[in-house]
Amino acid sequence: MKDIRWGIIGLGWFGEVHAEVLASLPGVELAALCTRRPQRLAEVADRFQVARRTTDYRDLLADPDVDVVGITTHIHDHRDIAIDALRSGKHVFLEKPMAPTPEDCDRILAAADSAAGSFMVGHICRFDPRVALAKQAIDEGQIGKIVSMHARRNLSVKIGRMVLDSISALMGDGIHDGDLMLWFSQARPVSVYAQEIHPGDNKYPDGGWAMVRLDSGAIMVIESIWHLPESTPYQIDARMEVIGTEGALYINCGEAGLEIHDRAGNRRPDTLYWPNVFGQRFGILRAELRYFADCVAAGRRPERITPRESRDAVALLAAAEQSSRTGQVVLF
Amino acid sequence: MKDIRWGIIGLGWFGEVHAEVLASLPGVELAALCTRRPQRLAEVADRFQVARRTTDYRDLLADPDVDVVGITTHIHDHRDIAIDALRSGKHVFLEKPMAPTPEDCDRILAAADSAAGSFMVGHICRFDPRVALAKQAIDEGQIGKIVSMHARRNLSVKIGRMVLDSISALMGDGIHDGDLMLWFSQARPVSVYAQEIHPGDNKYPDGGWAMVRLDSGAIMVIESIWHLPESTPYQIDARMEVIGTEGALYINCGEAGLEIHDRAGNRRPDTLYWPNVFGQRFGILRAELRYFADCVAAGRRPERITPRESRDAVALLAAAEQSSRTGQVVLF
Amino acid sequence: MKDIRWGIIGLGWFGEVHAEVLASLPGVELAALCTRRPQRLAEVADRFQVARRTTDYRDLLADPDVDVVGITTHIHDHRDIAIDALRSGKHVFLEKPMAPTPEDCDRILAAADSAAGSFMVGHICRFDPRVALAKQAIDEGQIGKIVSMHARRNLSVKIGRMVLDSISALMGDGIHDGDLMLWFSQARPVSVYAQEIHPGDNKYPDGGWAMVRLDSGAIMVIESIWHLPESTPYQIDARMEVIGTEGALYINCGEAGLEIHDRAGNRRPDTLYWPNVFGQRFGILRAELRYFADCVAAGRRPERITPRESRDAVALLAAAEQSSRTGQVVLF
Amino acid sequence: MKDIRWGIIGLGWFGEVHAEVLASLPGVELAALCTRRPQRLAEVADRFQVARRTTDYRDLLADPDVDVVGITTHIHDHRDIAIDALRSGKHVFLEKPMAPTPEDCDRILAAADSAAGSFMVGHICRFDPRVALAKQAIDEGQIGKIVSMHARRNLSVKIGRMVLDSISALMGDGIHDGDLMLWFSQARPVSVYAQEIHPGDNKYPDGGWAMVRLDSGAIMVIESIWHLPESTPYQIDARMEVIGTEGALYINCGEAGLEIHDRAGNRRPDTLYWPNVFGQRFGILRAELRYFADCVAAGRRPERITPRESRDAVALLAAAEQSSRTGQVVLF
Repeated sequence: MKDIRWGIIGLGWFGEVHAEVLASLPGVELAALCTRRPQRLAEVADRFQVARRTTDYRDLLADPDVDVVGITTHIHDHRDIAIDALRSGKHVFLEKPMAPTPEDCDRILAAADSAAGSFMVGHICRFDPRVALAKQAIDEGQIGKIVSMHARRNLSVKIGRMVLDSISALMGDGIHDGDLMLWFSQARPVSVYAQEIHPGDNKYPDGGWAMVRLDSGAIMVIESIWHLPESTPYQIDARMEVIGTEGALYINCGEAGLEIHDRAGNRRPDTLYWPNVFGQRFGILRAELRYFADCVAAGRRPERITPRESRDAVALLAAAEQSSRTGQVVLF
Repeated sequence: MKDIRWGIIGLGWFGEVHAEVLASLPGVELAALCTRRPQRLAEVADRFQVARRTTDYRDLLADPDVDVVGITTHIHDHRDIAIDALRSGKHVFLEKPMAPTPEDCDRILAAADSAAGSFMVGHICRFDPRVALAKQAIDEGQIGKIVSMHARRNLSVKIGRMVLDSISALMGDGIHDGDLMLWFSQARPVSVYAQEIHPGDNKYPDGGWAMVRLDSGAIMVIESIWHLPESTPYQIDARMEVIGTEGALYINCGEAGLEIHDRAGNRRPDTLYWPNVFGQRFGILRAELRYFADCVAAGRRPERITPRESRDAVALLAAAEQSSRTGQVVLF
Repeated sequence: MKDIRWGIIGLGWFGEVHAEVLASLPGVELAALCTRRPQRLAEVADRFQVARRTTDYRDLLADPDVDVVGITTHIHDHRDIAIDALRSGKHVFLEKPMAPTPEDCDRILAAADSAAGSFMVGHICRFDPRVALAKQAIDEGQIGKIVSMHARRNLSVKIGRMVLDSISALMGDGIHDGDLMLWFSQARPVSVYAQEIHPGDNKYPDGGWAMVRLDSGAIMVIESIWHLPESTPYQIDARMEVIGTEGALYINCGEAGLEIHDRAGNRRPDTLYWPNVFGQRFGILRAELRYFADCVAAGRRPERITPRESRDAVALLAAAEQSSRTGQVVLF
Repeated sequence: MKDIRWGIIGLGWFGEVHAEVLASLPGVELAALCTRRPQRLAEVADRFQVARRTTDYRDLLADPDVDVVGITTHIHDHRDIAIDALRSGKHVFLEKPMAPTPEDCDRILAAADSAAGSFMVGHICRFDPRVALAKQAIDEGQIGKIVSMHARRNLSVKIGRMVLDSISALMGDGIHDGDLMLWFSQARPVSVYAQEIHPGDNKYPDGGWAMVRLDSGAIMVIESIWHLPESTPYQIDARMEVIGTEGALYINCGEAGLEIHDRAGNRRPDTLYWPNVFGQRFGILRAELRYFADCVAAGRRPERITPRESRDAVALLAAAEQSSRTGQVVLF
């Protein structure tokens, strides 16, 4: 079978991690790169020896030798680029969150409905074996009916500072857990209440808490604080508690099986999401991109997460941000 | 020095644990026992060979050979008994929560203000070395200014069923963490929002979440779910996260250093609160009762926690219960 | 590129897991199956719709439409089948341990030296991101010079019973850690001393401990007990401690990020090695087989582990078994 | 009852910790202090306002106003001082290890047999609730017959450097676990084999491993490494695994419920052994000294650990040191 030709729009640090994965993925060719910044474009394209390079994403969308477009830009560019990409007929892999508002998401959904290509938003955690096994246990009824959920996804202030001018912590990481909890419970939000903190100097709040009532009667609580101290050993302190009427389960992605104490202090390197193992990126991101590539190759519609679900997660977190701004409970 | 003569009013399971501690505490005499149930009274008094026994707590309060009164009744009897005990001139140790409402607490406070004896509400966690060392680290500025706190204190449904006709999970265990967080932050609540779940058949909700905004700008979140499955290995799943501008600290009293896997399953016995070590009760409860006895012996006013602080914790959790009932944010 | 056609010899439970992985691996065709047991052969071959099936492994080796041979038989059949497979010109993937004795291994090594195909022994842990990141940290000097190592790899008695007629716990799982520690330290054993326990009814000892002195001066200690209680929450309790002159690191594969408490008790499912995620096998085994397939496809010699290293791990554990039998320290 | 008057011989850092506990223990008077170093004597005696102070321990033994003698000197002084103290008729509390050799211990035992006072060696871990609850579970048969045990008790190189001129890590901390394992199993050693490492510049080896065969058939393994990096978050990394035919149990005193991440790095302060809680020492050391004081006050012989058991632990670790020196298995 012919290799799938993948182009990337957006070459921040995460776009480059995408490139690293794709460059070593059998059956995939890293075919084209795009960023508005010429110097960065040259740097990354040279590194991966990619000939097709452009500072205008429309060039990439018009290129007949590109099959898949991965969008890893800032969230504020998602809507327009995703819609153009869908209209171009390419297969589109869009990083999460889908877009800043549910209205933006709805416009992307409309474009996706009439698009020829496959479309998926990169909710990486759905590809985490821990999460998937938890979902399977829940669906098999092992913990009964869910009554309470809590998710924490906290980061060092060092990482926070790099992204808090683009997105709030609550939207940026809460989007993961908002989605997972709706998926686990198969319920819909009735109300949401949130509070945020803003100790840093960036544009968006450094942390937030959201409490959601679901129509199933369950409570879900999201914690996302990008203000852990520089000395935190956590690459990411990500964990989840799901309590049901018959059982409970606990996911811990913060203590991911390796702890190093050396002259520089203590750390728990990323072993799960995109660990660099002898020069290649492994882990959940690789599984996720592999999944989308396999869907494209087989002509299958991605089913692990639907665009509608991605939109619903945005709607939930956007409502949380609104609650935080107004101090009021937001009803759905 | 003469032994301090301690009488107990209320002989549920926890009153009996008090008796076990006091019966083995040097310098203390377990002098008198009281419960309304004659059969239970005989059972416990015989066990500890206590001669002074009564079903009317006024008898105990009138007894000149009793120095200290410990009150371990249901919360709904706290107010009247505590006020009578304070007026009797005895030293009074009252179990937490102080009373069901801040108004009840205020009446107890008024009685305490004009009382001859010492008075303390049994906020056991203030005597936990983990908590105390955390408080010291916070006061020394090691984590900077607190921005976010979370506390979980979850119990098996087996334990929940035994107490949920007297008190909600949110008030019953949230009282601990509400107090600790106010103590840690030295801030006052501005608003509280809460949600509760009620999957069981008891009178009060089995679990709840409260989110509090403090006047320092920090967020505090309390989780108290008495609905863990019967198979839970946790005696109590109690942990706390405190994030500051310069550091973070984590308390874990749920995995207290011993895990047993046997034919009956998995469990993590209580090694902290009132472990039974070769027939004697040790741990934090013992340290707490020792502290109060030492205060009485030395004629010192207890300072580890003040009645005012105990009252403020009740006010916070009562407001959370109100928010849960009304669905509204409660402002202070 | 043409798919790599992979045949499997040996269809116990782990041979079937291999089949599950290979059947879903892009670029690989599960092409042929072999076991001596006709009924089992039909069962597995039907499940994966594999037409080429045989009870005589020589048929499979003679089949020109098979490129790679995976050997997942009992360890006592490894030597003869591996030598025949190597002589047949196929690429050979042999499960660990390479063979029961270093002499057997030497004969396989000799066959491999003159073989046309690639050859690798399946030391899965070398493909574990936790392990690989630890190796990288060690090689970068982050923990200085290693002085002490301990590895535990303990299993439930339920699993032990299934395999202890073929292999001892010390050889069966110690082979992993023996290899990893030699790899980490790049040192050679000077002496080994071991003790084993044999509480069960199977042929081989249920557990063992080995203490090794390395020529670098470091001590390495291996613990392998296949006698955890049936109620153990561990799928496998696998962890490693590596202490150096400048740092220390800790690997924990026993608490792999998911814990489930339900009516059946407590468990920590496999999320690392070959987790079944929505019907497909993911994890480290998949990464390992992918690696070998990619080496074959690219005509590269596998370098992540050499046959010589696999042989040295067998020599170490065989010496430990000898020490356990004789009660004497074995010198190298 | 009259206060028990306690004198301390040996005022290193741990002698001072003893003084801190005793100075705040109801029913006990810190009555006399002794060290050979006049300046240190003045410093500690002034701090606790102790009038009876001497640089000659014989003065303290001759003082009729001292009831109990606590010996916290270097191990090499234990034998002579303990024998003199026992002959003086005082009650004697001797820190562990009892003495460097079993022969020394036997001479102390002989003196204790004909002594008027009570005698106990300070095996603090026997007073740890975690350990005591484990012992109770074992004695109740909950894990069946013990087949394998492992104990780790590792310390930072910072602490190691302070004590390694007096004692080896294997004897210094292995004495705890050697004793506990013999106590748990109620078995006797048949053979011991050990290896030590000596990366530091101090007189004694920085770390060691011992493997013991018991007459019950069980294996016990002791790990004691005083060479963790300066950045280690562990105050002490102390944990134990006990596997039986019917169950298993795990003690963890290394992660004792509090973790602090601040500008100085990460640490897990001592919350168990002698935590300083608002100016007073609490924890297991306090429980141990309380126990001995209560025995003295009540005229009871201490039973939690016998001098014979303390001697047997020394014999075991001394044999391990001999094995390490000779490279041979030592038989009992």
